[in-house]
Amino acid sequence: MKPENDKHANLSELGEFGLIKMLTEKITLKNPGSLVGVGDDAAVLDYPDKQVVVTTDLLTEGIHFDLVYTPLKHLGYKAAVINFSDLFAMNALPRQMLISIALSAKFTTQMIAELYEGIYLACERYGVDLVGGDTSSSVTGLTISITAIGEAVKDEIVYRNGAKVNDLICVSGNLGSAYMGLQLLEREKKIFGSTGQQPEMDEYGYILERHLKPEPRGDIVQLLRELNIKPTSMIDISDGLSSELLHICTASKKGCLVYASKIPIDPETEKMGKEINIDGLVAALNGGEDYELLFTVPLSAFEIIGKRPEISIIGHIVDESEGKRLVTQTGSLVDLKAQGWKAF
Amino acid sequence: MKPENDKHANLSELGEFGLIKMLTEKITLKNPGSLVGVGDDAAVLDYPDKQVVVTTDLLTEGIHFDLVYTPLKHLGYKAAVINFSDLFAMNALPRQMLISIALSAKFTTQMIAELYEGIYLACERYGVDLVGGDTSSSVTGLTISITAIGEAVKDEIVYRNGAKVNDLICVSGNLGSAYMGLQLLEREKKIFGSTGQQPEMDEYGYILERHLKPEPRGDIVQLLRELNIKPTSMIDISDGLSSELLHICTASKKGCLVYASKIPIDPETEKMGKEINIDGLVAALNGGEDYELLFTVPLSAFEIIGKRPEISIIGHIVDESEGKRLVTQTGSLVDLKAQGWKAF
Repeated sequence: MKPENDKHANLSELGEFGLIKMLTEKITLKNPGSLVGVGDDAAVLDYPDKQVVVTTDLLTEGIHFDLVYTPLKHLGYKAAVINFSDLFAMNALPRQMLISIALSAKFTTQMIAELYEGIYLACERYGVDLVGGDTSSSVTGLTISITAIGEAVKDEIVYRNGAKVNDLICVSGNLGSAYMGLQLLEREKKIFGSTGQQPEMDEYGYILERHLKPEPRGDIVQLLRELNIKPTSMIDISDGLSSELLHICTASKKGCLVYASKIPIDPETEKMGKEINIDGLVAALNGGEDYELLFTVPLSAFEIIGKRPEISIIGHIVDESEGKRLVTQTGSLVDLKAQGWKAF
Repeated sequence: MKPENDKHANLSELGEFGLIKMLTEKITLKNPGSLVGVGDDAAVLDYPDKQVVVTTDLLTEGIHFDLVYTPLKHLGYKAAVINFSDLFAMNALPRQMLISIALSAKFTTQMIAELYEGIYLACERYGVDLVGGDTSSSVTGLTISITAIGEAVKDEIVYRNGAKVNDLICVSGNLGSAYMGLQLLEREKKIFGSTGQQPEMDEYGYILERHLKPEPRGDIVQLLRELNIKPTSMIDISDGLSSELLHICTASKKGCLVYASKIPIDPETEKMGKEINIDGLVAALNGGEDYELLFTVPLSAFEIIGKRPEISIIGHIVDESEGKRLVTQTGSLVDLKAQGWKAF
C-alpha cells in the first residue's frame, strides 16, 4: 500500500490524514446500494424496498486476541467476518461495513496495512463495501470496532423467537474446533515462551484455521434459499452451542431436547481434546467462536435437510415445560447450562 | 437501574448477560423505522423511500477523554451526540444508534449506569433509538464505539463537495470555546493535583459546558429547512475551522476567503484566552470539538441568512487558483493550514 522504503514508517510521521489516505485509497464501491463511502461525515446507503440489518462488535487486544500468535491479516479477516456471521444469522446478506481502530505507538504502518489486507480480503470474499470508519490513538494496544450492514426483504428475516414445538434443531459444519485451536495456541505459546523453540503444529492445521480464520456460513444461507427452506429461528454460534440454544429457547418460549451423539465434532478436535483432557463435546457445548449457524426448521423439512452432509440434525424443540435438556452418550438427561465448564 | 444495595456491584459478579440486561431493559423503540432493536444477532431497520446515512466514532480513555474531570454521564452524552453531529452535517436526521463498550475491572455497575444515563439522555433529546451493541472487557480503561444511523430523502443530503464560487461561507454558534474549556480543565487538574484544593471554575460555566456537553446543531438543520435554504456543502466542526474549511474546499475543488473579524468568538472564550495566552482566534481556527456546522449557501440567501443571529457569514468561496486564505484583523492575507499552531 506504500512504497517499500516506507514500510516501517512511524504512525506519527504519517499522521491521521496520511493513515486514512493509505488505508482507503484503494476502495472501490461495488454494491449499487453503497452510494457514498468514506470521505464525508457519513456514508449514504440506498435500500429501496429492503430492510436494513445492522450489527456491531468491538475487539480489544489482550481480551479478544493475542498478537503473539495471531497474524494481523487473520485478525482483520476475523474481525470483519464475525460481523457478517451475525447478519447471516438473521438470514440477511452483508453489504456494507464501517471500521474504527485505535492504535498505540507500537504499531507501524506496515502492521496496519497487514490488518487491512485481511479486512479487504473478507470484504472481497463476501461482497461487502467498506464505507466508513474512524482512526485514532490509544494508550495501550489495539482496539477494533466493526459495524456491518446487511439487507433482506421483510419476509426473509429470521429471528431467534420463531421456534415451534417439534421443529428440528440443526447446526452447520462441526463444533468445538475453534476452541481446541485456541487451546493449542495457548499451550504452544507457553512452551515457546519457556524453551524458545518454534512449536510444531502442522498436524493441527484444521483446528488452527478454525480459530484464526473462521468462515461465516453464507453458503448455508444460500443453500437454504435454494432448498426453499426458511428456518423458523436462527443464531450464529459465537458463545458455544449451549448458550445459543438457550437464547433460541428463551426467545421462542420453548424447550429443547438435543442428543450428544448427534452433535458434529471433527476427528482433529477429538484428538486434540484427548491430548489436553478436554472432552470434544464440552468444547462443542461451551467453547464458542465456531461461527456455525444453529437453526430450527419445520419437521416437514426432514427429508431434505437429512440428506445434506453440511447440516446435522441434533434434536428438536419441545414445550417450555419440558425444559432445555441434553441426552448424553449414556442415555441420561442433563439440563443445558450457558458457559458451564462441568464435564458430564 | 439496579436496586440501591447493588450499586457498586462488581462487574464480574453481574456477568456479561447481567450487564446487558441492566443496560437495555428500559429501552423502548420510538421511531417507526426501528423494527427490531437489541436482543437478536442484529437490529432491523425499515427505511421506505429514504436513504440511510451512517457514521461511527471510537473514543478511548486517555486519548479522547480524561475521567479525572469528565463526569461519566457527560461522557456518554457527548459520545452519542458527536455522532448525531456527523449526521446533521449531512443534512440527515439521526434515528438509530448502536453502542459498544469495553471496560476494565476498575469500573463498577454504578459507573456504567451513569455512562448510559448520558447516552439515554442524548437519545431522548434527539429522538434516537438505541438498537444494538456489544459489551466486553478491556485490559485497561474504557473504550466507547458508537455507530449512528440517520435518514434523509435523496435530494436533501448535503455533501462536502458542492460549494460553488461566490457561495457564502457560514458557521453556526461560536467557535473556540470547547478548546478553551479543555485548557481550563487541564490547568485546574494540575493545580488540584499539586495542592489538593478543589478548583474554582464557576465563572467559566459556558466554556466548560461547551467542552463537556456539546450540543450538535440539529436546530440549524431544522431552521435551514424552514427557511427553505439548502446548503451547497456542509461539515461539522470537530477538528477546528481551518481543517474543516480545507475539507470543503478540497472536496469541492474551490478556494476560500474568510475574514478573521467575522469569526464568531464568545467573550468568555476571549477572557480565558487572555489568561492562558492563547488567542481566541487561534482556538477557533485550530481548537476543534465545537460541533458547530460549517456550510455554504448561494449568494442569493444573503438577505435571509444575514438576519439570523445564530448564523455568522464569515467569507465566501473563490476559484481554486486563488487559494484558501484568511484576511487577518490587520488586513493581511495568510494561507489556512490544518492543525497549525502558529499564531499570526
